[in-house]
Amino acid sequence: MSQESKDKRHGLIIINTGNGKGKTTAALGTVFRALGQGFKVVMVQFIKGGWRYGELNAAEKFENFSLEPMGHGFLKLGDGEPASEDCALAETTWARCAEKILSDEYDLVVCDEVNYALSYGLLPVSMVLETLAKKPARVHVILTGRDAPAELIEAADLVTEMREIKHPYQKGIKAQRGIEF
Amino acid sequence: MSQESKDKRHGLIIINTGNGKGKTTAALGTVFRALGQGFKVVMVQFIKGGWRYGELNAAEKFENFSLEPMGHGFLKLGDGEPASEDCALAETTWARCAEKILSDEYDLVVCDEVNYALSYGLLPVSMVLETLAKKPARVHVILTGRDAPAELIEAADLVTEMREIKHPYQKGIKAQRGIEF
Repeated sequence: MSQESKDKRHGLIIINTGNGKGKTTAALGTVFRALGQGFKVVMVQFIKGGWRYGELNAAEKFENFSLEPMGHGFLKLGDGEPASEDCALAETTWARCAEKILSDEYDLVVCDEVNYALSYGLLPVSMVLETLAKKPARVHVILTGRDAPAELIEAADLVTEMREIKHPYQKGIKAQRGIEF
Repeated sequence: MSQESKDKRHGLIIINTGNGKGKTTAALGTVFRALGQGFKVVMVQFIKGGWRYGELNAAEKFENFSLEPMGHGFLKLGDGEPASEDCALAETTWARCAEKILSDEYDLVVCDEVNYALSYGLLPVSMVLETLAKKPARVHVILTGRDAPAELIEAADLVTEMREIKHPYQKGIKAQRGIEF
């Protein structure tokens, strides 16, 4: 990408939140659109196994795309205080996001399900806001997951709430290969 | 795809609606996930130019995907009665969707922005419901666009409303290449 077109760009902070389907799927759609424009894209995942066979297989066709899954799943999520190992894992995963965002090497950085870590209190929202405040102007960032905190929404340019109106489990239909994973 | 795995499948009727971003983008994400699973996918577009360079370029990497744009744009949309040419174009475009859905040759058929034609009264919802009632069991169908009619929502398995919480034009930021197109 030429310096000129870099300079013209206004990197967006995008949030896909809400209780419905389509938060990660819309991020995935944006990833493919960006790859089709020759962008360099990385996705860092806060939920282990959040991406499955279908998208991984499709993503492999694009050399400009990399996926960075977190090391292991969260251990003890529940109503009580979050476990210190889980907080440490969330902070390490955010550190990786921050490194990608601040490196200025990517056109688009997706922090998949980061809102999950924020809403469970595993990661302080101030840590995320601090990185976003230092974001290079040309870098687009997508943050997904339900229950995005108000301070994050305040900092964003484009926020969409995916609201569940109807879901197949209400009819007893199982998740469908190729559609939901 | 083997007969056995065909038979196990429960083809979903999926609607992405609402006034927010992400309706077509989430459909695009699902298309790539489905392609990654080896599905055969077609997208029929009710809005000319609804897909742009980014996604077209990415889609070309997959031989199992075809895109069928409508012939020309709608002519006279407004508050009054829809023009008969526009109704004819919408019905022709739906006939193409119906042909793909009923052929049983595709795993996923996306009718992009069909709700637009329905909500403008260019296409009777009964015509869409009639096709969906005859849908082969294994075929997944995605219908996108704002203002999905209640009868269509009634017939669907998975309905998500994309609600706009915040949009970059509120800050005077133009649409960004690689992200919004």
